Amino acid sequence: MDAAIVAACRQLLAEAGYGGITMDTVAARAGVGKAAIYRRYAGKQEMVFAAAVHDLTITAPADSGSLRADLTALCADIAASLTTIPAPSLLGLLADITADPASAARIQEAFVETERACVTEVLERAVRRGELPAVPDLTAVHALLTGSMLSWILMLHRTDRRTLDEFAAAIADLVTTTLTARPPKPSPAE
Amino acid sequence: MDAAIVAACRQLLAEAGYGGITMDTVAARAGVGKAAIYRRYAGKQEMVFAAAVHDLTITAPADSGSLRADLTALCADIAASLTTIPAPSLLGLLADITADPASAARIQEAFVETERACVTEVLERAVRRGELPAVPDLTAVHALLTGSMLSWILMLHRTDRRTLDEFAAAIADLVTTTLTARPPKPSPAE
Repeated sequence: MDAAIVAACRQLLAEAGYGGITMDTVAARAGVGKAAIYRRYAGKQEMVFAAAVHDLTITAPADSGSLRADLTALCADIAASLTTIPAPSLLGLLADITADPASAARIQEAFVETERACVTEVLERAVRRGELPAVPDLTAVHALLTGSMLSWILMLHRTDRRTLDEFAAAIADLVTTTLTARPPKPSPAE
Repeated sequence: MDAAIVAACRQLLAEAGYGGITMDTVAARAGVGKAAIYRRYAGKQEMVFAAAVHDLTITAPADSGSLRADLTALCADIAASLTTIPAPSLLGLLADITADPASAARIQEAFVETERACVTEVLERAVRRGELPAVPDLTAVHALLTGSMLSWILMLHRTDRRTLDEFAAAIADLVTTTLTARPPKPSPAE
């Protein structure tokens, strides 16, 4: 039944956009009762987030043996999540979440926490390998990774797979450099 | 007259949101003819972007003597731009731009280019000071700076000035570290 709801959501997003779908149209398309959907999701925002961005079962990419390769895989996962949903529907979803603080809090506590757990796992592996002395500021690293991909997709509109993968690798490289760098040489001006 | 259009746009965004304003309502509120608006802006997207995000006259922050301080000021400028417009209207604007490739191209060529020019100026100063050996990948640095602030504002909904300024400083620190770092020690796993 979960798969039917996900498939119905994705079909309707492609056909009608975020604004054009309701719990009723998803229930009808999926061939399930609306109560069945409400048992799984508190509202439209959670349903669409789970069906077309990512659900609560996401996990960190497999351990690749290095922080750089783990972050490259994680950035590719983030890019895939943010392009599973069409950009106009992603914006409609974000607008709907922003307009509803209760839904924003629920999404923060559930979906965003699973993202943070993936970032934490990758950073903790790097600590265990001796690549990092300690887990760095999680909120900043999460924003650097997700924000860069979001900016690229929403502001630069470059969503073909090749440029997106290249950009994911470039961001992973920069963030790896940030986290593993020895202190910079003092600036002559500082 | 420009100031009247900007003031009218901002008032109407606050009252009616992005979806509730038109060239007609802005013209009426500003007390100008619609033709006067169209002489300045090709469409609603450009008008709102210029009035409530940033216009084409933005410049890099004053030279503070170091890359770190320049980036901190630049991140604060970006945060200010992204919070001048209410978050729901920012999302409406981004959705409208995304839905209209011609407007997206115009905004890219005008407004986003002025942002890139500010980033370039800050990076070139650091090259002249000897802090950086060369200007790094401009697209990636622009995405790290704007994307992180965008993610913080749109996904984490933390837009009070103090946390936003602290976050801007944290991101500027991380990006400064990235750009000025000596090569990392080789990872034991690589």
